[in-house]
Amino acid sequence: MSVTHPQGFIAAGSTGGLKASGKKDVAVVVNEGPLHVGAGVFTSNRVFAAPVAWSRQVVADGRVDAVVLNSGGANAATGPEGFLDTHTTAEHVSEALQSAGLDVSAGDVAVCSTGLIGERLPMDKLFAGIDDAIAGLSAEGGPVAAEAIMTTDTVAKTAVAERDGWSIGGMAKGAGMLAPGMATMLCVITTDAVVDLAVAQLALKESVRTTLNRLDSDGCMSTNDTVLLMASGASGVTPEASAFQEALTAVAHDLAQQLLRDAEGAAHDIAITVVNATTEHAAEAVARAVSRSNLFKTAIFGQDPNWGRIISAVGTVPEDVAPFDATALDVRVNGVHVCKAAGVGEDRSLVDLSGREVAIEIDLHAGEATATVWTNDLTHDYVHENSAYST
Amino acid sequence: MSVTHPQGFIAAGSTGGLKASGKKDVAVVVNEGPLHVGAGVFTSNRVFAAPVAWSRQVVADGRVDAVVLNSGGANAATGPEGFLDTHTTAEHVSEALQSAGLDVSAGDVAVCSTGLIGERLPMDKLFAGIDDAIAGLSAEGGPVAAEAIMTTDTVAKTAVAERDGWSIGGMAKGAGMLAPGMATMLCVITTDAVVDLAVAQLALKESVRTTLNRLDSDGCMSTNDTVLLMASGASGVTPEASAFQEALTAVAHDLAQQLLRDAEGAAHDIAITVVNATTEHAAEAVARAVSRSNLFKTAIFGQDPNWGRIISAVGTVPEDVAPFDATALDVRVNGVHVCKAAGVGEDRSLVDLSGREVAIEIDLHAGEATATVWTNDLTHDYVHENSAYST
Repeated sequence: MSVTHPQGFIAAGSTGGLKASGKKDVAVVVNEGPLHVGAGVFTSNRVFAAPVAWSRQVVADGRVDAVVLNSGGANAATGPEGFLDTHTTAEHVSEALQSAGLDVSAGDVAVCSTGLIGERLPMDKLFAGIDDAIAGLSAEGGPVAAEAIMTTDTVAKTAVAERDGWSIGGMAKGAGMLAPGMATMLCVITTDAVVDLAVAQLALKESVRTTLNRLDSDGCMSTNDTVLLMASGASGVTPEASAFQEALTAVAHDLAQQLLRDAEGAAHDIAITVVNATTEHAAEAVARAVSRSNLFKTAIFGQDPNWGRIISAVGTVPEDVAPFDATALDVRVNGVHVCKAAGVGEDRSLVDLSGREVAIEIDLHAGEATATVWTNDLTHDYVHENSAYST
Repeated sequence: MSVTHPQGFIAAGSTGGLKASGKKDVAVVVNEGPLHVGAGVFTSNRVFAAPVAWSRQVVADGRVDAVVLNSGGANAATGPEGFLDTHTTAEHVSEALQSAGLDVSAGDVAVCSTGLIGERLPMDKLFAGIDDAIAGLSAEGGPVAAEAIMTTDTVAKTAVAERDGWSIGGMAKGAGMLAPGMATMLCVITTDAVVDLAVAQLALKESVRTTLNRLDSDGCMSTNDTVLLMASGASGVTPEASAFQEALTAVAHDLAQQLLRDAEGAAHDIAITVVNATTEHAAEAVARAVSRSNLFKTAIFGQDPNWGRIISAVGTVPEDVAPFDATALDVRVNGVHVCKAAGVGEDRSLVDLSGREVAIEIDLHAGEATATVWTNDLTHDYVHENSAYST
């Protein structure tokens, strides 16, 4: 049920005509309260899209009443005119909601866009889609909203965590440019739990840090990454902050794994786990370096347990970031101990890479911290899809 | 004439049998003096091969009499046994040269290896190749030596700079794992100029910095990158340090461009030039970020001037590394001003990407410094070649 699973939310998806395919391209999610707690994390890319600039302002006061999302155009690199388009979009949503009897001001409407960078949005089509969506808002609208934000995604991504009297729901899109710096692609998470702003902000930041931010499919950080959390309080239940954190992390992890499985052109889902690092940050840095090695990624595509490409990537991480003895490295590929003490270990021919899921474990023998980064292989289909995207 | 163009050098290539293909796989270059100045720069990868560890020791005293190079195996991630193999190789070369009447001690023999990581070298085959090469050493042996160090290279790379009474010659190999941190792949440069060690070291470091180190074909740093410079002084001519620097940079640039043109699976050679940066370091950092974007690289393969992928990569560079106003960015693709002030510029359909060479210019409007990084596109052939390399 996506973002409308928790009480207090209505949503819808519609077709404005922004996509040449004629598929749904506009989604609206509204928080009917009684609370209107809102928090967000956004791309750390210095080249950020107009809707990111706008939505940062919206969440600044901790209140979000509604979010409008469109696929079919990122509204990035569109200058002051693009920002005006986003502002006008929020105003249009506000007016349409007020006509429908919902008192929402433009300053509480977050905006998210996704699609090609460097093109203005066709505002007439966007507005038509918004009007249609708002006319169709319902407590069953979550799945359709999730469908409307898809771009090259092949399946809609939704997740739910049901807890004792309260719940969390979420939707996400993203299949390429998938290496979030502060968030990933577009993701809206809702809850009917009674949470105050401080808990919501902290829980969102922490849950994204260890889930969506550990997804590094193709090393390319988007200009539009946005994760929004809206809490309605409609359940009347106030969970412990730790319980809320746990459930939010579960939903964010679920969505991140769905993004991983649907990444453009991927044939393998790869979990790179670094163990026995001095710090979690060091473990993450090492895992991310491996996740960004095209030679490693093409080897996995070729079902080749070429561990030399793993340790050569590990060796690029500066010592001040991740202290370890480079002659002590161990590597396991799908459980086979192929590299022992940075030398030849078990026979690499014992490794079976025919399945979709691949587990890489790198032991730094330097401490006790662990982190996992998830990535995909580099395939012919990835090259094909991304060499023919905008043309 | 490669490394034997300058006076005072003899070289040879031979077939030891390390390559399954039966092609040449061992090269030896000897400096007959009268000077024996030697300098080197090596990979900054913390996981470095045994021959890198050895050759760092050899150049430490500023003297190199000979270098032996093998393809067919990197001798990386081979532990203490691998280092012993390298040491034994240098001793074998020394003994064979002494038998041939050349007084060279093992401690003055640099060793370079290239090929698959994580396999011991077949020492009997290597020694047989060395013996053959040493038996065939001649002042005409440069081209054959250049051929013997090829791995996935399709052509041998050699370069010469002829100056007033002295010259520089060089050879290099490298087609993949091509993103040097301190050097690139294997490269031997010789000169008959009379240069002292300080001039040689400084000139080598500086020339590599702006040529080979600006080559970033696939973002993957090797465990074996080595550039060696040997000066024989046989011309009797002592050039100005600046003249030597200029000629050395010309040879290094020539070799780097040859590596670029022969990079695995590449269909385009891309020069990414960043202008008006605050510092050269900032310009290089921005250019390198773009060079590592798989989405940018696949777009170029698809002849798609998708400049959104360029500025989204530019935006990932931290502000403390490269200060600039992200709303002021200009981008030109093959001369067409497609992005103005981080917004839509000239029509992207005006860009012609059908040729092999692509020029990207990014104007940061932040200062006066410039740097160029050279890279390749990401193609089906790259994926194919690298998914089937070790199997």
